[in-house]
Amino acid sequence: MTALKVALLGCGNVGSEVYRLLGEQAGDLEARIGAPVEVAGVAVRRPGRTRGVAVPAGLLTTDAVGLVSRPDIDIVAEVIGGIEPARSLLLTALKAGKSVVTANKALLAEDGPVLHDAARAGGADLYYEASVAGAIPLLRPLRESLAGDAVRQVLGIVNGTTNYILDQMDTSGAGFADALEEAQALGYAEPDPTADVEGFDAAAKAAILAGLAFHTRVAAADVHREGITGVTQADIASARQLGHVVKLLAICERSDKGVSVRVHPAMIPRTHPLAGVREAYNAVFVEAESAGRLMFYGAGAGGVPTASAVLGDVVAVARNRLAGTRGPDATTYADLPALPMGQALTRYHVALDVADKPGVLARIA
Amino acid sequence: MTALKVALLGCGNVGSEVYRLLGEQAGDLEARIGAPVEVAGVAVRRPGRTRGVAVPAGLLTTDAVGLVSRPDIDIVAEVIGGIEPARSLLLTALKAGKSVVTANKALLAEDGPVLHDAARAGGADLYYEASVAGAIPLLRPLRESLAGDAVRQVLGIVNGTTNYILDQMDTSGAGFADALEEAQALGYAEPDPTADVEGFDAAAKAAILAGLAFHTRVAAADVHREGITGVTQADIASARQLGHVVKLLAICERSDKGVSVRVHPAMIPRTHPLAGVREAYNAVFVEAESAGRLMFYGAGAGGVPTASAVLGDVVAVARNRLAGTRGPDATTYADLPALPMGQALTRYHVALDVADKPGVLARIA
Repeated sequence: MTALKVALLGCGNVGSEVYRLLGEQAGDLEARIGAPVEVAGVAVRRPGRTRGVAVPAGLLTTDAVGLVSRPDIDIVAEVIGGIEPARSLLLTALKAGKSVVTANKALLAEDGPVLHDAARAGGADLYYEASVAGAIPLLRPLRESLAGDAVRQVLGIVNGTTNYILDQMDTSGAGFADALEEAQALGYAEPDPTADVEGFDAAAKAAILAGLAFHTRVAAADVHREGITGVTQADIASARQLGHVVKLLAICERSDKGVSVRVHPAMIPRTHPLAGVREAYNAVFVEAESAGRLMFYGAGAGGVPTASAVLGDVVAVARNRLAGTRGPDATTYADLPALPMGQALTRYHVALDVADKPGVLARIA
Repeated sequence: MTALKVALLGCGNVGSEVYRLLGEQAGDLEARIGAPVEVAGVAVRRPGRTRGVAVPAGLLTTDAVGLVSRPDIDIVAEVIGGIEPARSLLLTALKAGKSVVTANKALLAEDGPVLHDAARAGGADLYYEASVAGAIPLLRPLRESLAGDAVRQVLGIVNGTTNYILDQMDTSGAGFADALEEAQALGYAEPDPTADVEGFDAAAKAAILAGLAFHTRVAAADVHREGITGVTQADIASARQLGHVVKLLAICERSDKGVSVRVHPAMIPRTHPLAGVREAYNAVFVEAESAGRLMFYGAGAGGVPTASAVLGDVVAVARNRLAGTRGPDATTYADLPALPMGQALTRYHVALDVADKPGVLARIA
C-alpha cells in the first residue's frame, strides 16, 4: 500500500519527539491506520542545529513553503508555534487539500475560524488535540463523544506553570515571587513568564475550548483575562481556612444569552475534583446536560506528551484520508454572543457553589 | 438526504433516554452527522408497559430478530444487557453489515473477540463506549487518541456502587452492612448486590479495558476477582491512619511477559488522583509511555449518562457509514498471555508506590 507522506514543520522539543515516535512506532501506526506513514520532509530554520533525534540531512529543508506545496504531501504536522509563518503555511496546505495537525494554540485562538473555513473549502482535516492540555484526550471527546449532548460549562486548569506556582504557595507557604523562581529553576516557567502568569496562555486555550464546547466562534480577544501575579500568600492562607484552594481557572459557560469565557484566579472547595490537581498537571472539568460532570486529567505540556497528542491526530487524519472522508467539523452552527464579565458572575455563584472572586481575593484576607 | 435508520433493542431505563435524546437532539445530530437519524423500530418484551418516554405503538415490536434483519436498518443500538438474546441479535446484525452500538459489558467481556470478528467480517462498526464508565469518554481515547502510544497500566474505579459504599465507610464510619443498606435505600445498589459487591461487574469492565488498552484478548475469566464484602471499618480506619483510602480497583498491567488483570480492594495514598473520587463516581487512570499519566472522571452509571455515551457512538458509526468506512479496529494484534496473580504483585509495588494488599487488608488492622 502507498505510504501517506507527512511534512513536519518545526523540529524543536516537540517536533523531535514527533519524528522519533513516527519512526519508532511505524509498525504499530501502520496497523492502526491501514497504510504506512512516512516523514517526507522536515522544515527547520537552522538545518545544522543539534537535535534530540537524528534526521537525515536529505529530509531537512529551510523552504517550508516549498515543502507544504509539494504535491506528494498528504499530511502537514505543524509544531512551530506563533502566528506567522505558521498561519500562511497551514492555509496553503489546507487550501491544497492536505490534512493539518497542529499544536499551535496561539494561532487557533487568534484565527481558528479562518483555518476552519480553509479546511472546509479544501476538503481537508484540521486537528489540534495538542494545542490544549497536551496529551489529555480532551478536544476529541468534546468534538465527537459529546456529540448529541449539550455542554453547559467547561472549567479548566490549562496552564501547568501557574498551577505549579499556586500549588507550591499552598503546600510550602511560599510567596508568589519565590514560587515563580522555583518554577523557573525547575524549567516549569520560562525566563520571561508573562504569557503564563498573566493568563495569556490560558486565555488562548479557553477560547479554543469554548469554541469547541459550544460550537461557536470565540477569539482570544473575547476572553476576560486576569493572571496570578496579584495572588498573595495571605490569599492562599485565607482560602485554606475556608476549606478552599486557589487555582487559575479557564471558565467557559453557556447561557440562553450567549457565551462567557474568562480566565482568573478562583477559590474552589477542596472537595471539588479540580482541587486535587497538583504540581504542573492540567485538568478540565466539563458539565454536560446528559453526560453530567466529567473530568479529564493529565500532563498539560512537555515534548513527549505533546508529541503523543500530535501522533494521535496524525492517525485520525490519516485514517480519514484513506477513507476519503473528513473528521466531524468543529463547525460553528450556533452563533452565540460573547457576554461581558459582569453578566456571568452571578450565574456562576448560583449554579456551581464555587467561591469565584476574580480580583477580590485580597479582600478576603 | 436519506435518513439513517436505527433499530433500538431494549427500551428500559437507558433505552428510553436514548429514544428521547434521538428525538430531542434530532437537528443537532443531523448537523453533526451530515444526515438525519431516525428510529425505525424498538424491540421490547412487553409492548404495553409504561415507559419514561412515549414510543409510537407502530415502532414497538416483540420480534427483535425480525427487526435486526430488516434490510432498511443501518444501525443497531442494543441496551438489553445480558448474554442472550443480545449476542445472537448483534451477531446477526454485524454479519449483515449493520453498525452496532452496545452498552453490554457482560457480553463484551464474555464474547468480545467473536463480536469483533463478526464486525470485521461484515465490514461493520462495533462501538461500546457505554459499556465501561457510563458517559466518560474513555474507550474512544484508548482506541484512537492513544494510537501510537504504548499503554503501560490502567487503574480504574469502574463500579459506582462499591465506591459509594467504601466512601460512606470512610466518611461516616459506617460498617459494610450499614453502608450497603444505605446504598440500597438510595438506589445505588440492587436488592441483590452480588454483581457489584463481589466485583463481577468491575471484572467485566476490567477485561474490556485491558483488551482495548493492550490490543489483546482478555476474557472475564482471565480476571482475578475479589469483592469488598470482606472490607471492615477497621481496615478503612487503618488505611486512614496511614494516609490512605481503600478503593475497589480494576488493575490492568502490561509487562514484557504478558498482561495482568485483576479487581480487588486496594489502599491508595490520599494524594493519588483516584483517592478523591467520591460517592458513586467512576474514574480511570491510564499511564502511557508518551502521554504519561491521564485520568478520566465522571458518572459511571445512570440512564441519562449511559444514553449520552450511546448517542456519541451512534454519531460516530453514522458518520463512518456515510463515509463508507469503519472506525479503527479494536483489533488484537498483540497476543499476550494473561499472567497469574502472584507474578503481578511485586511489580505493582515497585512501579507505583501504592500499598496494594489484596485480601490482607484485615491483617493491617
